[in-house]
Amino acid sequence: MKVDMILSNGIVVTMDKRLEVFPRGAVVIKDGQIVAVGPATDLSGRYEAEQAIDCVGQVVMPGLINAHTHVPMSLLRGLADDLRLDVWLYGYMLPVEREFVNEESCYYATLLSCAEMIRSGVTCFADMYYFEEEVARAAQEVGLRAVCAETVMKLPTPDAASYDESLEYCQRFIAGWKGHELIVPAVGPHSPYTCTPEILREMARLAQEYDVPLLIHLSETEGDVEGTRQLYGCAPAFCLDDFGVLDSKTLAVHGVHLTEEEMELLVQKSVGVAHCPTSNLKLASGVAPVARMLDLGLKVGIGTDGPASNNDQDMFEEMRLAALLAKGTTRDPKAVPARIALTMATIGGARALHLDHITGSIEVGKQADLTVVDVDVLHITPKFDLSVDNIYSRLVYATKSADVRHVLVNGRLLMKDRELLTVNVDTITAEVQRIADRVNVFLMRREESLLDKLVAIGGLEWKETFEVQVKGSVEDEAVVMEGLIHPDISAVWSPSVRDQYDAYLLFADASQGCIRHREDNVVREEGGVPESIRTLTLTGSGSEQEFDNSVLLSRSRFTSKADRTLRFYCEYFEPDSVKEVHKHRQRWHIRYKGVQFAVNLDRLTKPAHEGAFLEIKSRTWSKKDAEQKALLIGELLDVFSVDRESLLKRDYVDF
Amino acid sequence: MKVDMILSNGIVVTMDKRLEVFPRGAVVIKDGQIVAVGPATDLSGRYEAEQAIDCVGQVVMPGLINAHTHVPMSLLRGLADDLRLDVWLYGYMLPVEREFVNEESCYYATLLSCAEMIRSGVTCFADMYYFEEEVARAAQEVGLRAVCAETVMKLPTPDAASYDESLEYCQRFIAGWKGHELIVPAVGPHSPYTCTPEILREMARLAQEYDVPLLIHLSETEGDVEGTRQLYGCAPAFCLDDFGVLDSKTLAVHGVHLTEEEMELLVQKSVGVAHCPTSNLKLASGVAPVARMLDLGLKVGIGTDGPASNNDQDMFEEMRLAALLAKGTTRDPKAVPARIALTMATIGGARALHLDHITGSIEVGKQADLTVVDVDVLHITPKFDLSVDNIYSRLVYATKSADVRHVLVNGRLLMKDRELLTVNVDTITAEVQRIADRVNVFLMRREESLLDKLVAIGGLEWKETFEVQVKGSVEDEAVVMEGLIHPDISAVWSPSVRDQYDAYLLFADASQGCIRHREDNVVREEGGVPESIRTLTLTGSGSEQEFDNSVLLSRSRFTSKADRTLRFYCEYFEPDSVKEVHKHRQRWHIRYKGVQFAVNLDRLTKPAHEGAFLEIKSRTWSKKDAEQKALLIGELLDVFSVDRESLLKRDYVDF
Repeated sequence: MKVDMILSNGIVVTMDKRLEVFPRGAVVIKDGQIVAVGPATDLSGRYEAEQAIDCVGQVVMPGLINAHTHVPMSLLRGLADDLRLDVWLYGYMLPVEREFVNEESCYYATLLSCAEMIRSGVTCFADMYYFEEEVARAAQEVGLRAVCAETVMKLPTPDAASYDESLEYCQRFIAGWKGHELIVPAVGPHSPYTCTPEILREMARLAQEYDVPLLIHLSETEGDVEGTRQLYGCAPAFCLDDFGVLDSKTLAVHGVHLTEEEMELLVQKSVGVAHCPTSNLKLASGVAPVARMLDLGLKVGIGTDGPASNNDQDMFEEMRLAALLAKGTTRDPKAVPARIALTMATIGGARALHLDHITGSIEVGKQADLTVVDVDVLHITPKFDLSVDNIYSRLVYATKSADVRHVLVNGRLLMKDRELLTVNVDTITAEVQRIADRVNVFLMRREESLLDKLVAIGGLEWKETFEVQVKGSVEDEAVVMEGLIHPDISAVWSPSVRDQYDAYLLFADASQGCIRHREDNVVREEGGVPESIRTLTLTGSGSEQEFDNSVLLSRSRFTSKADRTLRFYCEYFEPDSVKEVHKHRQRWHIRYKGVQFAVNLDRLTKPAHEGAFLEIKSRTWSKKDAEQKALLIGELLDVFSVDRESLLKRDYVDF
Repeated sequence: MKVDMILSNGIVVTMDKRLEVFPRGAVVIKDGQIVAVGPATDLSGRYEAEQAIDCVGQVVMPGLINAHTHVPMSLLRGLADDLRLDVWLYGYMLPVEREFVNEESCYYATLLSCAEMIRSGVTCFADMYYFEEEVARAAQEVGLRAVCAETVMKLPTPDAASYDESLEYCQRFIAGWKGHELIVPAVGPHSPYTCTPEILREMARLAQEYDVPLLIHLSETEGDVEGTRQLYGCAPAFCLDDFGVLDSKTLAVHGVHLTEEEMELLVQKSVGVAHCPTSNLKLASGVAPVARMLDLGLKVGIGTDGPASNNDQDMFEEMRLAALLAKGTTRDPKAVPARIALTMATIGGARALHLDHITGSIEVGKQADLTVVDVDVLHITPKFDLSVDNIYSRLVYATKSADVRHVLVNGRLLMKDRELLTVNVDTITAEVQRIADRVNVFLMRREESLLDKLVAIGGLEWKETFEVQVKGSVEDEAVVMEGLIHPDISAVWSPSVRDQYDAYLLFADASQGCIRHREDNVVREEGGVPESIRTLTLTGSGSEQEFDNSVLLSRSRFTSKADRTLRFYCEYFEPDSVKEVHKHRQRWHIRYKGVQFAVNLDRLTKPAHEGAFLEIKSRTWSKKDAEQKALLIGELLDVFSVDRESLLKRDYVDF
């Protein structure tokens, strides 16, 4: 029989269901598929191969599967390490991503990551990032198999000012790539706590409509879990289940802090898990209970996570660490033996990604995704043959990524004798370095930025980007009370009363935005003791869109607790001027036609002002949502009988 | 000025006290020493070098220091992994070491480890093993710097049937190598719980007499700590201090379970610590509190531990893991930043080994122990220059051992362009594989051994090797009571009373030894409830030496709890015959002239026997000690007025 290729005389480690190993085996490939596997002596005479590769002294194994990464983040490798999460994220990752993540950088950085992964024996990876179109394009050009998930979240991303755009991009991307022989497009809701219920439901719907995988970060840190609980009132996995997210071909990434009940739910829903031990250690998230996951029958793969939090994409090191860490943390030296670690890094990853019908093991009928590794080398000497576990031990505990010799995907050689055949390393590294040099200059220059200084203080939180607001002059409280009995106002929370002492730190360079220091003395219940809350808010310069009845502001907002004095902040930020605004505020939270608004009745004491202002306000992560709210605000002005002539669309600081 | 070598144009990472980095630096070497370091432009014109190496695109750094290993154990790499400690140790390591560890295997396996370490950038290692003479010889031939500690413990070792011989070997070894330019001989008491107070005191004395380092395992597992507490009644570090062990140039290895007070003691005593993260994880010992150690000012280095429990000697992976693990386990992403990890792997290791006046940093006057690493490579792309930490991040989080290009020790090139210059890899790997093949056959064959089967049941413990014993016929208890009032008997514990039901499982092949199943019904206090203790004891075949008054037996003894029925053990071990011995025993523990003995008054009921036997017995790890005890037993026979004519030097089973 004529075939395309035969790999002979290597130790063939199949990772099939019986974990068969052929000490001197052969793998036969035709049209990208494995057509035979067995002892070399049985097979060699039966096939006439276009290309024959002698693998003596080598192991032929299924290509490694990197079950979670963000490949374009190789651009940011080594940019900033060993930092607190907020400093790392808000101080480095997000500002650089905002500025430098685009089609071009994603394409080149993906090529760089692909080259790195091929050299370390990876044949398939699962990605979550932005401009996923470029990730798919680069992976396809290089010839790697990839699950590419466009990331969607409530925060603005480099490829979408609001999540509405992300969702559209995602749908377009999936429609375009569905059915490709190498690329599996997927949906990537970022995580429960960075999405809204609408995003989660919409992504679940999309995954089912197109029958594509859904990748999502789950329970990475204790903070995530707490944040999700606060938002949705239940454990993260259960909240995902509520939104239908577990009914797709779902992969949950990290799972460091999953409870026993959550793990059982994931088993029941056939959800895969990507274990990322290096990243979980490096970002100090903790250690995932992998041994327990495996005991419960979860489908667990191994991922490197993005190169900004690892900082490499070396699956040999990653599976070694998975095997070691499980033992050390459970205090059981038998936990995650080498055989299981290699399973996770190959067929386990394929199962977790719902791709085990295509790849992950050397079996007739599967695609020929193979890695050939030198094992007759100094640092893997000597060899023992006491049990079948000896070969797994050599591969997991002693083999290095530099020992990978050949890599094939779909039967096509991507690396032969360590030479990359589908990618020009010099060109790629030069391109990525060119972009990185610009990042370098950018970060050097922005040392004086306000955000950077705010980040340095710590405890930062990113707030909703879009704000709709309007103010109108009113006589007194009576207008509010009358308005509140309107039939379309379905819920009213009892109002709070507060004195707000704001100091705005203003800068000559308005593009930097401004910082507000607020002392908020709130009385939450009638007769209650005032509670003093002090916050810092950095409001970026933004765009505005004026409607008949209101104004829609689009601008970044970061807040943090102000635990130092105003004097300190003035000295620290060195504003060009400071403007004070004092007011007495009554605040109601209302729901009008199902949408929540804040209604404030304000009396300005500094600068002093006659009469009162009724302010109607709402914030959201979605531009589309904001536009709809602007229309509703128009109706609310009528509800509260506000004179249109008296409308003010400015902030008090701009008075 | 004429010099031997100049390395130019690389990024010189000095690891000196100011952590100076020269982005385009040079290092100048003459007579094995560093004579200048600084910017390349400053230095290049001033020196005329025999050999000039251009290091553009590379980092020139101090050679890595492997602060703890057992280099000859590369022979056992991958032999047995993912096992319970007792199975790993008693089932594989100890039997193979007993059989195969000799001068030849230690020499070749050391060469193998040295080759592996040079290729991963190591210039100095600290070893603890047997036949340390061979380790030193091999290291010296290859040209690596090494601290070589002959291991001494109470258990028999491959190079000593008892610890007396070990001590002699150790002293001879130190005297022979003291003052060598590369090899620092050292003493290596294995650990507090595997030594006796005499060994610990003697080793401390030796280290001070010769002014050499003392290396010792400390608090590796919770079991070690507990064992030490039971033996000495205090925490391991404090017990070492009691025996004077901390007053030398001491290195404590592991320190996984050190208390705060112990760490403070080590700081005060200027003791170094070798942190072995991979080994501690792999053997499920736990995670050492490294961040805390560093906070307290401990001198911490990093070690790979032996290749049988790692399974490589790759210091790049080891320092990466040290950095990662500290963060994940303390939940602090700033713990052990890259800079500190590299410090531990270089100058920190030198400090821990008390060698920082010679090596560990690139400073004028130190020996030229250098490693040159390629950093302009795919998987370390891109590079950023935001802070000095970027270069540490690249070296710790992204550099692989395969990126090491040149290695120099004492100014001599051991590797150039990845080619090993002082060792023939093919010869070594062939020699080690030849020995390993014999190990393979040995282990395949011994599947039927009793010890192996006992090991498989679990819970094994190795007991004292030497036993001195004698029995004499006596009338009754009165003779004991009279004897006990002798002035040289200084302490007598109240006797226990017991009925012992022994079943001896005997085998036609006597070389296998025999197994005793004992049901021991003990009454510890008069009128107390009998306590039933069931044990299995495997006694190996051994040699015996007859004295006038007693017999000295030298044979291996392993015990474990017998938690199954005698029926099970008979079916499991399939003995050729079973012999039962039942007796009633009164036991006193006495101290005679300061030495402890057991005195038993036995009445045999099966096989039934008239009268009683007085048995005097003692066990020890030292042959010399046993010989002295044999003499004392002679005296005790007089004390207890035992008729010399009635003496029996056999076990009851041999009646």
